[in-house]
Amino acid sequence: MDWRKHVRTALDGRHPGLGHRVELGLHALILYSALSMGVETLPHLPGWAQTALSVSEAAVVAVFTLEYLLRLATAPAPGAYARSFFGIVDLLAIAPFYLGLVFIGFGLDLRAGRALRVLRLVRLLKLARYTSAVDRLIAAWRAVKEEVVVFGMAAIIVLYVCALVIWQFEHDAQPEAFGSVFDAMWWAAVTLTTVGYGDVTPVTAVGRIFTVLMLFVALGIIAIPTGLVASALSAIRQKEASAAAEDREAGRRPATAARD
Amino acid sequence: MDWRKHVRTALDGRHPGLGHRVELGLHALILYSALSMGVETLPHLPGWAQTALSVSEAAVVAVFTLEYLLRLATAPAPGAYARSFFGIVDLLAIAPFYLGLVFIGFGLDLRAGRALRVLRLVRLLKLARYTSAVDRLIAAWRAVKEEVVVFGMAAIIVLYVCALVIWQFEHDAQPEAFGSVFDAMWWAAVTLTTVGYGDVTPVTAVGRIFTVLMLFVALGIIAIPTGLVASALSAIRQKEASAAAEDREAGRRPATAARD
Amino acid sequence: MDWRKHVRTALDGRHPGLGHRVELGLHALILYSALSMGVETLPHLPGWAQTALSVSEAAVVAVFTLEYLLRLATAPAPGAYARSFFGIVDLLAIAPFYLGLVFIGFGLDLRAGRALRVLRLVRLLKLARYTSAVDRLIAAWRAVKEEVVVFGMAAIIVLYVCALVIWQFEHDAQPEAFGSVFDAMWWAAVTLTTVGYGDVTPVTAVGRIFTVLMLFVALGIIAIPTGLVASALSAIRQKEASAAAEDREAGRRPATAARD
Amino acid sequence: MDWRKHVRTALDGRHPGLGHRVELGLHALILYSALSMGVETLPHLPGWAQTALSVSEAAVVAVFTLEYLLRLATAPAPGAYARSFFGIVDLLAIAPFYLGLVFIGFGLDLRAGRALRVLRLVRLLKLARYTSAVDRLIAAWRAVKEEVVVFGMAAIIVLYVCALVIWQFEHDAQPEAFGSVFDAMWWAAVTLTTVGYGDVTPVTAVGRIFTVLMLFVALGIIAIPTGLVASALSAIRQKEASAAAEDREAGRRPATAARD
Repeated sequence: MDWRKHVRTALDGRHPGLGHRVELGLHALILYSALSMGVETLPHLPGWAQTALSVSEAAVVAVFTLEYLLRLATAPAPGAYARSFFGIVDLLAIAPFYLGLVFIGFGLDLRAGRALRVLRLVRLLKLARYTSAVDRLIAAWRAVKEEVVVFGMAAIIVLYVCALVIWQFEHDAQPEAFGSVFDAMWWAAVTLTTVGYGDVTPVTAVGRIFTVLMLFVALGIIAIPTGLVASALSAIRQKEASAAAEDREAGRRPATAARD
Repeated sequence: MDWRKHVRTALDGRHPGLGHRVELGLHALILYSALSMGVETLPHLPGWAQTALSVSEAAVVAVFTLEYLLRLATAPAPGAYARSFFGIVDLLAIAPFYLGLVFIGFGLDLRAGRALRVLRLVRLLKLARYTSAVDRLIAAWRAVKEEVVVFGMAAIIVLYVCALVIWQFEHDAQPEAFGSVFDAMWWAAVTLTTVGYGDVTPVTAVGRIFTVLMLFVALGIIAIPTGLVASALSAIRQKEASAAAEDREAGRRPATAARD
Repeated sequence: MDWRKHVRTALDGRHPGLGHRVELGLHALILYSALSMGVETLPHLPGWAQTALSVSEAAVVAVFTLEYLLRLATAPAPGAYARSFFGIVDLLAIAPFYLGLVFIGFGLDLRAGRALRVLRLVRLLKLARYTSAVDRLIAAWRAVKEEVVVFGMAAIIVLYVCALVIWQFEHDAQPEAFGSVFDAMWWAAVTLTTVGYGDVTPVTAVGRIFTVLMLFVALGIIAIPTGLVASALSAIRQKEASAAAEDREAGRRPATAARD
Repeated sequence: MDWRKHVRTALDGRHPGLGHRVELGLHALILYSALSMGVETLPHLPGWAQTALSVSEAAVVAVFTLEYLLRLATAPAPGAYARSFFGIVDLLAIAPFYLGLVFIGFGLDLRAGRALRVLRLVRLLKLARYTSAVDRLIAAWRAVKEEVVVFGMAAIIVLYVCALVIWQFEHDAQPEAFGSVFDAMWWAAVTLTTVGYGDVTPVTAVGRIFTVLMLFVALGIIAIPTGLVASALSAIRQKEASAAAEDREAGRRPATAARD
C-alpha cells in the first residue's frame, strides 16, 4: 500500500491501523468550529477569549486546508474530486478565511466580513459525507423533484397573490403594517406556514374573511410537498429493506456494504 | 400548413420554426404583469412611474387580447375553446381592463376599480396551461373530491359551532374581542388552523377548557383533507410511473406525449 | 303502499312522487336554525328581530317534533329507532326547547338557559344522516380506535407532565401567568398543538430549554393520531373503490346502494 | 402454586382469584400520586392540605417500595428484573423520596428538592407496563430509529445554523431580543415548529427574507421524522392485523395472547 492509499483511507476512516480516529478527529474539529461561532456571539466576551477564538479559528482552517490538499493529492482523479459536491464543500469550508485576509489587506472588512462569517457554516456539510441517510434523502428528492419544484413555484405565486389581495384590503386601515406588497408577503408567509407571530394581523372584516378562505384553500398547497417527500422517503426505505432481505437470503453481503 | 396551424402551434410552443419563443414571450409578459401589480403598491411612486405602469398595462392587455382573438380564430371549434377552462381564463385576464374603461366612462371608479385590479391576477392561471403536474393535481382532486367536499363542509360547520360555543363563554368577559359570532369565527379559524396570532384569546377558565378540547378533537377534521389529497396525489404518481415503465418496455412513446 | 311507507320514504328523500323535496326542506330548516343562533349573537338587535327569532325557533322545534313523532310512528321497530344514534340526535335536537320551557316555568332561566342554547347545535348532526362519507369515517375510526385512545391518553399525560415541569421552572419568575398547574396546562396545550398564541410564554433559560426539548419530543405524540386516522381512511376508500369496481364488472348494483 | 407465583400473578393482574384488582389498585395509586403533584401547585393551600399531601405521598412511596421488593423477591431472575426497563422505572418511582430524606438529613433541601419533585413523574411510566400499543410503538421506533436519529441531528444543526444566521442579521437592530446565539435558538425553535409565540420576531428586511426562505426549506426537515414514525406505525399495525387473521384461520390463539 503506497502513502496515497494510506492517507486516503485514514481520511475516510477505513485505514487498517488508524481506523476511524482521523475521521472522528476531523468531525470533532467541525463541531468545535461551529460551536466557537456561537460563543463569538456572547456579549461581553473578555479580550483573551476573543484572541483564543481567532487563534483556534486559524488552527482549524490550517487543518482543513491540509485535509483539502491531501484529498486533492491522493484522489484517483483530482479534477473530478475538485468538481464533486464534497470537493466544493471542502473548498468553501476554508475559502472564507483566506478571502477575509484578502479583504483586510484591502482595508474593507465591515459588511463582507459578516457574510463571510456566515459562510463558515458550510463546514457542517462536511459531516454529511458518510451518512447513508443522506443518500436516501437524495434518492427521495430525485423521485419527487419535479412535483416539489412545481409546488414550490405554486407556493411562491400563491404567496404573492395573497399578499397583493390583502394589501388591497388592509393598506388603508393599517398603512404602517401593510406599507407595500413586500410587507404583505411577510404577513402571508408567516400565516400560510401557520407560524402566526401576530406582529401583523388583518383588522378589516373583508381582510379577515379573505384570510380564512386563504387558510383553508392554500394550506394544502404548502403542506403537500412535505407529504410527497415523506412518502417517497418511506417508499425508498421499504425498497432498500426488501433488497437487503433478498441479499441476506442469497447469502451475499448486504447492499449497503457495497459502498466500501 | 395553413396560417391557422402556424398561429396555433406558435402560441402553444410547438411551431417547427419558432419553437417555444412565442410561448415563453407570453409567459414573460404574464410574470411582468404580476410583478408590476406589486410595484404599484410601493408608497411614494413618482408620477412618471405611475404613467409607465398604466401604459405598460395597456400594452399587456393589447397583447393578451390579440392572443385571445387568435386562439378563437384558429381553434378547431371556437365555441368549445371559449367555454373551456383556459378559454374563460384567457377572457378573464383581459376583461377587467375593458370593464374598468366602461366604469370610468360612467364615472364610477372607486370601489369597483379595486376589485378589478385584484381580478387581473387571474392571468397567472394562464401559466398552468402546459404543466403536467397540473393534470396530475386535477386527477388527484377528482379522486378525492367527494371526501374533501364533505370534510370542507364539516370544517365550516365545526368552525361555526366552535364560534357559537366560545361566544357564549367569552362574550361577557371580552365584549370587544368576542362581539358577535363573526368575531368568534375569526378566532376559531385562526386557532383551528394553528396559526394562533394571539390577537384574540379566551381568558375565562371554561373558555380555555373548551379551547383545549376543541383543539384535540377538531384539528383532525381540518388536517385530514390535506392528507387525503397528498395520498391520492402520490397514488396517481405511482400509477403514471408504472404506466410509463410499461410503455418504455413495449417500445411505444410515453403516455404523457399522447397530449400533443 | 300504506301511509307509513309514504311518510318514511318522504322523510328519507326516496318517495316516488315527492323525491328529495321533504328531505331538502328539513335540511334547509336545520341550516336556518343554526344561522339564527348566529344572528342572535349580534349586538344591538332590535326588539322585533328578537321576537321574530323566538317565534321562528318555536316553529322549527314544532316541525322537528312532528318529524320525530312521525319517524317513531312509522319505524319498523320504534324502540330500535329511539335508541339508535340518529334517534337520540333527533330527540336532543328538540329537547332543549322543552327543557327551557320547564325551567322558565320554575323561574330558573339564567345559566341553564345558556347551556341549553348551545345544545341546540346538536341539530346539525341531523345533516349527517345521508352522507356515505360519515359511514367511511366511522369505519376508519373503528379500525384505529384502540391506537387513538391510547395516544389520546398519552397526549393528556404528556400535557399534564409538561405543565407540571414548566410550572416548577416558571412559577417563581411569572407567578401570574403560571399560577397553578392549570394555567401551565393552558400554556402546554396551546404550545403542543403549535397554535402558540403568545399570551403565556416561558422567560427563564431553563424553561425555554425545556420547551424546545418538549416540542421536538412531544409534537410526534400529538401528530401521530391524525396520521393514523388519515391512513386508515384512505385504506377504506381504496377497499370500497375496488369493491365497487368488482360489483360493476359482475353486473350487480354498487355496494353503496345496498343501504336502501 | 407457591406464594411467589401468587404474588407475581397478582401484581400483573393475572391471578386466578384476585384478577385485575391489585393491578388496578396500583394504577389508581399512580394516578392519585400524579394528581396530588398538580394539587400541590395550587396557591394558598391551607396547612392541613399540605400535611395531608405529605402524608399521602409517604404512604404511596411505602406501597411502591413494597411492590418493588415483592417484584424483586418473586422474579425468576431478580438481577434481570432490576436491570430491565420497568425494573429501573420502578426504582426511579421511589428513589426521589428517599434521596429527599437524605438531603434533608444533610440540610440541603432547596434546588435539589425541586428537581426530585419533578422526577416523581417517572411513576407514570409504570402505567405503560401492560399496553400492547406501547409494544407497537417500540417496534415502530426500532424500524425508523436510524432515520429519526439522523433527522434529529439534522434538526439540531439546522436550528443552530438558522440561529447563527439570524443573529448576524438582527443583533444590531434588536440587541435585547437577539442578545446571543442562545436567544436566537429560542426564536428558531419556536418558529420552525410553527408555534410562533411572537415574543421574538425579526424586524429587518434581510432577517425577514431569511425567515421566509428558512420556513419553506427547513419545515420539511422538522416535519419528516413525524411522518416516518406514523407510516412505520401503520405498517406494523397492518402486519399484526394480517398475522392475527392468519392465526384465526389456523384455529390457534391470536398472537397477542402469546405474551402470557
